[in-house]
Amino acid sequence: MPPERTRILIIGAGPAGLLLSTLLHRSGVDHVVVESRSRSEIAHTHRAGILEAGSVSTLVDLGLTRVIEEGDRHDGIDMRFDGRMHRIDFDGLVGRSVWLYPQTDVFVDLADRCEADGADIRWEHRVTEVLDAESDLPGARVEGPDGAEYEVRADLVVGADGSHSIVRHGFPEQMRRTWVHEYPYAWFGVIVEAPRSAPELVYTESEHGFALVSQRTPTLQRLYFQCDPDEDAAEWDDARIWHELQRRVAGPDGFVLQEGPVQERTVLRFRSSVVEPMRLGRVVLVGDAAHTVPPTGAKGLNLAIGDVVVLHELLEEWLRTPDDTLLDEYGRRAGRRIWRAQHFSAWMSRMLHSTPDEDGFERRRRLAELHMLVDSEAGRRYLAEGYTGWVDPA
Amino acid sequence: MPPERTRILIIGAGPAGLLLSTLLHRSGVDHVVVESRSRSEIAHTHRAGILEAGSVSTLVDLGLTRVIEEGDRHDGIDMRFDGRMHRIDFDGLVGRSVWLYPQTDVFVDLADRCEADGADIRWEHRVTEVLDAESDLPGARVEGPDGAEYEVRADLVVGADGSHSIVRHGFPEQMRRTWVHEYPYAWFGVIVEAPRSAPELVYTESEHGFALVSQRTPTLQRLYFQCDPDEDAAEWDDARIWHELQRRVAGPDGFVLQEGPVQERTVLRFRSSVVEPMRLGRVVLVGDAAHTVPPTGAKGLNLAIGDVVVLHELLEEWLRTPDDTLLDEYGRRAGRRIWRAQHFSAWMSRMLHSTPDEDGFERRRRLAELHMLVDSEAGRRYLAEGYTGWVDPA
Repeated sequence: MPPERTRILIIGAGPAGLLLSTLLHRSGVDHVVVESRSRSEIAHTHRAGILEAGSVSTLVDLGLTRVIEEGDRHDGIDMRFDGRMHRIDFDGLVGRSVWLYPQTDVFVDLADRCEADGADIRWEHRVTEVLDAESDLPGARVEGPDGAEYEVRADLVVGADGSHSIVRHGFPEQMRRTWVHEYPYAWFGVIVEAPRSAPELVYTESEHGFALVSQRTPTLQRLYFQCDPDEDAAEWDDARIWHELQRRVAGPDGFVLQEGPVQERTVLRFRSSVVEPMRLGRVVLVGDAAHTVPPTGAKGLNLAIGDVVVLHELLEEWLRTPDDTLLDEYGRRAGRRIWRAQHFSAWMSRMLHSTPDEDGFERRRRLAELHMLVDSEAGRRYLAEGYTGWVDPA
Repeated sequence: MPPERTRILIIGAGPAGLLLSTLLHRSGVDHVVVESRSRSEIAHTHRAGILEAGSVSTLVDLGLTRVIEEGDRHDGIDMRFDGRMHRIDFDGLVGRSVWLYPQTDVFVDLADRCEADGADIRWEHRVTEVLDAESDLPGARVEGPDGAEYEVRADLVVGADGSHSIVRHGFPEQMRRTWVHEYPYAWFGVIVEAPRSAPELVYTESEHGFALVSQRTPTLQRLYFQCDPDEDAAEWDDARIWHELQRRVAGPDGFVLQEGPVQERTVLRFRSSVVEPMRLGRVVLVGDAAHTVPPTGAKGLNLAIGDVVVLHELLEEWLRTPDDTLLDEYGRRAGRRIWRAQHFSAWMSRMLHSTPDEDGFERRRRLAELHMLVDSEAGRRYLAEGYTGWVDPA
């Protein structure tokens, strides 16, 4: 069977892949999306829930308005330490907000839109090999759900297939470098049936470690607390979880953390990684396939959206004039935002978490930093710029 | 021989001790200063050279105006990375400046003033023991230059005797804690005969490590570069020093570092430490006796001045109404500034220095932080607030 032919082959139908499909459809560019998982499996994988102002604009500009209709606009966060709240008023500081809107909903909105667009999304089609990356006609060998193999060839292959990316593994070892940072802590995340304890996110530093009070719906809350990376979630019953959360958020202001049955419990490991280059010949990487961030600061999905927006802008030009220096520009432009997000996530993580070997000096330094930051309008604004997403990270 | 009696016994005649003497003289409070070194020995010990706006005001308010007549006002610094200058305009950002004015000159100004005041400064008198700290009449046993011993008793003893403080060692081990942070690098400092290469300080990040271009006079410059803490300064000839400095400051902007004969070379070790409490009964610690900071950010002398200003304010009241809770307030109030300075110094150090075990991720994170900082007005202002000295660190 001769290979199929399309202009852009997108590997991976998570938010990054589907957003690119949506943008290419608007530009009238022929493309195919292949995804190894089923739509339903992706729709049920809980992930981050905070969208930067720019990510929201990207969705709304495409007519995907459910985020602002059903999501919760958060005009700030609270930094909680010494048992007291210290508000960072994003709206007042930088005139921007973020939205609490689960990644699974972003996925569903994009998947619905792609279906309405009549896009060629192939669920449960698995890429087994990326072909001829450095030629003018790269492609992939794909295995359908029936086990039959076929080939797709394109002008460009986009690897949007997440942190275990098959596409990235197709880059020869000697041609790529991966910059990695490991953290000596993780998050224990739970979904609980309870009313909201706070209207917006509360990032909490305490002598017992970090905790994050987040929300999902009026009756379901998302809570996290710092734990050992090797913690076994199955060993924690509800009482132990609430004890750990309560002692971290306790304080003289009488803040009340509302309790209820724990529905889900997971350990989220922390890892920063960046792959360079993001392009090999006619294959490029976007989102988690190219980089991962720890969950502190919620940059993961926002970076994926940022990558796709940058790539799509360059593709518009490249498809008219296939000058490959335009593809080099992709890594340079996206890289600036990626490294800022890496710094921002590492900074927020370090400032708020205790490390197993932390000494008295380091904890006092962190508390002094938190005070210095929240007491300064400039400090709060500097944090707000990063949290809400840099307007132009050039 | 019966003990001598004074109201305040100051141990140490560095800038902290002499500043307190000057302030007490203005308030008409009887005091004695004892110092183990000679005036000339202190006057020839090179130390930091940057005074915060508030430190300058303190001196000028006392009529010590040579700092603004002969010192150099610096309205900003340059952060140099990627081989280019990135200016932090303190004056434009926070309306404050700092002054380049060597610590030895601050010392000479204060010593001259104390002599003019007729203050009882006893050079080369060594304290051998602090007496009865927790009584109402603490004191010290002192050995004069002739070897004769005598006792001085006071309402309050002030330990201003530097990082090797005898007074601090008089605090029983079980009553004090010392919070310490060690750094895996040091500064190689040189004084060179050369014209100025830059009008203000240049903090340089490079792939070869940190360097700082500073000034002393129109014909003498103070330069530093990051080195191993165990480096032996004697092993470095001029050529090797210039090679190391030049490759760190090199860049596409063509910045020229002016060379000349190296007059002095020293290795400055980095250490952060804070002693708590700063008071035991009727004995208090000020300046380096209570805390040390690494040289990055030049906070050492400024913290000592800050301590003395806070202590003097409280003493004015305490001498009228000897309520010892006023003395407790000293540690609380001074501590806020001290811990901010500790954070600030550690932050500047970490952002600008490479560590021996630094990986590619960490260096890229640091460069992203530097870009994020200088590209943001808020980031520059946040740094400027710390560098010029927090107006009210309450």
